[in-house]
Amino acid sequence: MANNKPTLYTCLSPALLHLYDLRNAVVVIIDVFRATSTIASALHNGAQCVIPVDEVAKAIALSKNIEGSIAAGERDGQIAEGLQHGNSPLEYDRDFIGNRTLVLTTTNGTRLLQMALDNEADTIITGSFPNLSAVCDFLIKQNKNVVLGCAGWKDRYNLEDTLFAGAVISRIKENFTIHCDSSLSAEIQYDLAKDDLHGFAPKLTHYHRLVDRFGLIEDIRFCMTPDIANVLPLYKEGMLLKG
Amino acid sequence: MANNKPTLYTCLSPALLHLYDLRNAVVVIIDVFRATSTIASALHNGAQCVIPVDEVAKAIALSKNIEGSIAAGERDGQIAEGLQHGNSPLEYDRDFIGNRTLVLTTTNGTRLLQMALDNEADTIITGSFPNLSAVCDFLIKQNKNVVLGCAGWKDRYNLEDTLFAGAVISRIKENFTIHCDSSLSAEIQYDLAKDDLHGFAPKLTHYHRLVDRFGLIEDIRFCMTPDIANVLPLYKEGMLLKG
Repeated sequence: MANNKPTLYTCLSPALLHLYDLRNAVVVIIDVFRATSTIASALHNGAQCVIPVDEVAKAIALSKNIEGSIAAGERDGQIAEGLQHGNSPLEYDRDFIGNRTLVLTTTNGTRLLQMALDNEADTIITGSFPNLSAVCDFLIKQNKNVVLGCAGWKDRYNLEDTLFAGAVISRIKENFTIHCDSSLSAEIQYDLAKDDLHGFAPKLTHYHRLVDRFGLIEDIRFCMTPDIANVLPLYKEGMLLKG
Repeated sequence: MANNKPTLYTCLSPALLHLYDLRNAVVVIIDVFRATSTIASALHNGAQCVIPVDEVAKAIALSKNIEGSIAAGERDGQIAEGLQHGNSPLEYDRDFIGNRTLVLTTTNGTRLLQMALDNEADTIITGSFPNLSAVCDFLIKQNKNVVLGCAGWKDRYNLEDTLFAGAVISRIKENFTIHCDSSLSAEIQYDLAKDDLHGFAPKLTHYHRLVDRFGLIEDIRFCMTPDIANVLPLYKEGMLLKG
């Protein structure tokens, strides 16, 4: 019997994205600490949309032209120079972000999104633990090929993005044809960590970057809590909108 | 107290090699299925040296100039066109390879070795389960920075190379400063698989490429048996010699 399920691949670093055919695929941009968690948080709390941009100057310029919008972002884990707001999901509560536009620039996540666009991805969404179920439901419904794109850290592998890929795979694998060791590895590691994601976090290099240097333990907790901001950020004409 | 231990990083794909500084480092070329297992096998069985080359035509030309040498290699898992010998560690027993030179070209491992040379690696060795202890002993003795270089499959991540990196890390981690999620991931997965490497093998995509298509189950067994050909292949002036 022919296997007509769509394929699912996991791409462990933006530097490997060229190995995958994105043209008929839904690409999930994964930047758990913290861009895609922040995007879920903002949309969940009523932001009109999130506009991801690759440069700080672009964020500022664009924000000036959109009434009531907020230019925000980080470089190397801190609020980027020239901006007043950063990349913490906890900054964007309903009182602050409701009905406003967030123009966001980050080190890894927004860059990968741009690369997916350049590689002609069919559909782009963003994913992280706070919107795990929304991502899984969407992927099953679409019934298209999937590439889980881990943003990593400056092209290096990071494990929190891989863990999220594993979480998605463990939920939706029956609906897809999966033959790649990246996906196998993601699922194996998620299975090992899933019962205590918060306890696992201190093993991660990125945890130390965020917690030891900047004290962002509450950010980490948010970013590793499944379905705490369960919306689907869907990219359309330059914007991420609640799908 | 200052930590003066050398660093250890794991590079999960040749396409990520540029992220690491190889200039003062020992680079371990890892291509478990099967190039670096075959290299260990040939040297263990008395080959004078193994000459890794990147093209079939080069292998043939070079072999013609070295008396009694053997040109060998594979492309896509099969003996490469124009060659009589392939990339199976079991082909190179003592009767056949003793005192001869093996000129070897493979899809992934020899390519990564060339990349390490181009990136000015200080020292290059090859590693796989058959020579696990020899690799670990050498790395501890050298006391230099280490990059564990996984050859992967056409730049894609593969888990058997990562498992070997994890095996090395689990044995020598006390001697190195290790802050990278690739190394963490390698060790986690090795810990999970180590008690039954042969049982774990059927999960790997490369296993199916080699076993389902070419029936090479005995090759797999050899390649996943620690210390069955426990020599140290050390690269020097174009050749891999018993170190």
